[in-house]
Amino acid sequence: MKKGMILMKKFEEKTTHTEKIYDGKVVKLQVDDVVLPDGETSKRELIKHPGAVGVIPITKENKIVFVEQYRKPLEQSLVEIPAGKLEEGEAPKVTAKRELEEETGYTVREPMAFVASFYTSPGFADEMMHLYLAKNLELVGYPATGDDDEFIELVELTLEEAKQYVKNKRIHDAKTNYAVLYLETLERM
Amino acid sequence: MKKGMILMKKFEEKTTHTEKIYDGKVVKLQVDDVVLPDGETSKRELIKHPGAVGVIPITKENKIVFVEQYRKPLEQSLVEIPAGKLEEGEAPKVTAKRELEEETGYTVREPMAFVASFYTSPGFADEMMHLYLAKNLELVGYPATGDDDEFIELVELTLEEAKQYVKNKRIHDAKTNYAVLYLETLERM
Repeated sequence: MKKGMILMKKFEEKTTHTEKIYDGKVVKLQVDDVVLPDGETSKRELIKHPGAVGVIPITKENKIVFVEQYRKPLEQSLVEIPAGKLEEGEAPKVTAKRELEEETGYTVREPMAFVASFYTSPGFADEMMHLYLAKNLELVGYPATGDDDEFIELVELTLEEAKQYVKNKRIHDAKTNYAVLYLETLERM
Repeated sequence: MKKGMILMKKFEEKTTHTEKIYDGKVVKLQVDDVVLPDGETSKRELIKHPGAVGVIPITKENKIVFVEQYRKPLEQSLVEIPAGKLEEGEAPKVTAKRELEEETGYTVREPMAFVASFYTSPGFADEMMHLYLAKNLELVGYPATGDDDEFIELVELTLEEAKQYVKNKRIHDAKTNYAVLYLETLERM
């Protein structure tokens, strides 16, 4: 168990059977038969995901660096903070720095600060998102290509502009909405 | 298209084939073959979800009302704001008020304020979360039962206590972390 983590088991649901439905590149799906606290039974549909990192990247000119990309599940593109799936055995901070460099061409020399972590959708998925703050970015000239099957475009915004993007729903996902709200709180301190 | 929504299609990925893998109570899973902007092909694993609402409930004594429940995908219980899946054809605000009453026994007489909406995990799922603020709660005495297969316990906290729960990771999901951060920004205004 990780340091500082309190794993609560209240109302635990015991698994009596697991049916593995799908084992994909990004997600696995299984359906568990469970026994509820009152002895009744139910089924739980569970998505397994390796977890992810997101970086809140701030340039020396105090611009926030976002990436715009097409999100197939939504059939639209969104403006998001750079992010990526965790790699087996890689520390989240290492993944975060790599994704920042690959997706934006910026790197960070100083240590990134931990901002928050959260399960994105605990009702049906185990994906955890880890968020870091990367300040005083340096452009190192990597092209912003992402992975082979990722097409992305950089969008650099002031905080005020980012708030407008949230209003227009061009920024419209949990980690990025959280990031913009977080920067608002920093500004007010 | 909803009012005020800008649906961007940049880097659109055209679907050439859809394989339906699973159609469950909560999620559906499909795998789409897509053509990328450069003409190459790839596969996308997509979770379809009806969407969800969350309510940030504040009592007249300025306590925030959370619910603790077991989250099977995580094999632990979390302290979260009341939330639930959208019902077909039901407005998010109506679902939100019903979930508040069912899960907490509190209701709200004044209109709830819209706080935010966001896709929880746009890389693989289309679930959208809608968040509302419910103030000046009234206890109407419904037992806090939730659905048939939900076991929940009320946890009423001050904002300071809630921030401690975030630190201890007993609050540890996107909508609830967002809610606590949102209440922090309100306090600072």
